[in-house]
Amino acid sequence: VREALSCPEVVLELFATAAALDRYGGLLADAPVSQISERAATGLSETVHPQGLVAVCRAVDVGLDEVFARGPRLVAVVVEPNDPGNLGTIVRTADAAGGDAVIVAGNGVDLYNGKAVRASAGSLFHLDVVVDADPLAVIAAARRAGLRALAATAAGKLALGDAPLAEPALWLFGNEARGLPPEVVAAADAAVHVPIYGRAESLNLSAAAAVCLYASATAHRSRSHA
Amino acid sequence: VREALSCPEVVLELFATAAALDRYGGLLADAPVSQISERAATGLSETVHPQGLVAVCRAVDVGLDEVFARGPRLVAVVVEPNDPGNLGTIVRTADAAGGDAVIVAGNGVDLYNGKAVRASAGSLFHLDVVVDADPLAVIAAARRAGLRALAATAAGKLALGDAPLAEPALWLFGNEARGLPPEVVAAADAAVHVPIYGRAESLNLSAAAAVCLYASATAHRSRSHA
Repeated sequence: VREALSCPEVVLELFATAAALDRYGGLLADAPVSQISERAATGLSETVHPQGLVAVCRAVDVGLDEVFARGPRLVAVVVEPNDPGNLGTIVRTADAAGGDAVIVAGNGVDLYNGKAVRASAGSLFHLDVVVDADPLAVIAAARRAGLRALAATAAGKLALGDAPLAEPALWLFGNEARGLPPEVVAAADAAVHVPIYGRAESLNLSAAAAVCLYASATAHRSRSHA
Repeated sequence: VREALSCPEVVLELFATAAALDRYGGLLADAPVSQISERAATGLSETVHPQGLVAVCRAVDVGLDEVFARGPRLVAVVVEPNDPGNLGTIVRTADAAGGDAVIVAGNGVDLYNGKAVRASAGSLFHLDVVVDADPLAVIAAARRAGLRALAATAAGKLALGDAPLAEPALWLFGNEARGLPPEVVAAADAAVHVPIYGRAESLNLSAAAAVCLYASATAHRSRSHA
């Protein structure tokens, strides 16, 4: 809620219990709040232990053109994600890694799913998000904007350390079970795998995204310091 | 179940529906199986869509001495984890990164929680696991075995890239909300933070673990190739 309030014109309505008004009063000072009962807060929230504070927000997603017009250097695309926790965690990780945008492509879980929003820990309001994108259109737009499209896939030819990490990157991540569609891998500039040094078959989607996004973020910064 | 069956003397009993016997028959060829109804399978499983196959396994955890007697080079310690999904994901990530062991320390979620086991995707059976460890005893044992104890903490003095990553490492990760206990950070050889380049306050626990464990795994391998 704090991160939503930090974005102009995002919060439409706020609801808070008496206890939440006491606890978060400073945060809410400039916003119109309706007081609600504990029972109503439980009804509005999807969690077992609600904090008693609910913000109704407008959708924050933007269009592809807007994302690429800003000259992004690090963008994550998640194609047909299945797990809202993974999707929200990737938004949080992309934000932490200094990413400019997260794009949800294909038919996947809703970015505004309560679990995805909570897993993003406020990062949903920190970077550009795009929903319902066509993955091939994303790759084309990214290429025009000077980004390398890197498909993260266990079968990728390049090991992560051999990928062109110093370049501005559009990272593409696939569904938890099926991975990326073959046509998306084929359209990318490179197919990249995170090396598996042990006996695990693969990494969890959000763990793989963390390793890839931080690899680019680190390489971007060592190039600029060199 | 396949990974459990690949470990000698781990599986005590197997239960399978008729459909699962058809589907996984090859896998089960050498193991004694009791056939069960779909209804019994649903009762035995904690998931919404059970696969109809259940293995009863003995506990696989070992003692600290056993872990450090094997000369490990990469060990993850999770102190008081709260979320079984995070814990299981860290086991899977540690396995993928070529880690030797995962140690659960302090009072946290049970490593044998069904969600943790499923999130580990079989990796629970691939590396050494220790439960109910005392974190300070772990650090002492690791140091005697020649590992550097690296405490992952947002307030850590060293940025990840400046940490002594080429050395054999014992990585310590803390609770999702509270982080590592101060006495654990103080006892470690270094306190290390993953740089936050954007506006996120922090990384998700399992994302931070992925970045740290892969940083060590990569550095271990570039040193041996140098």
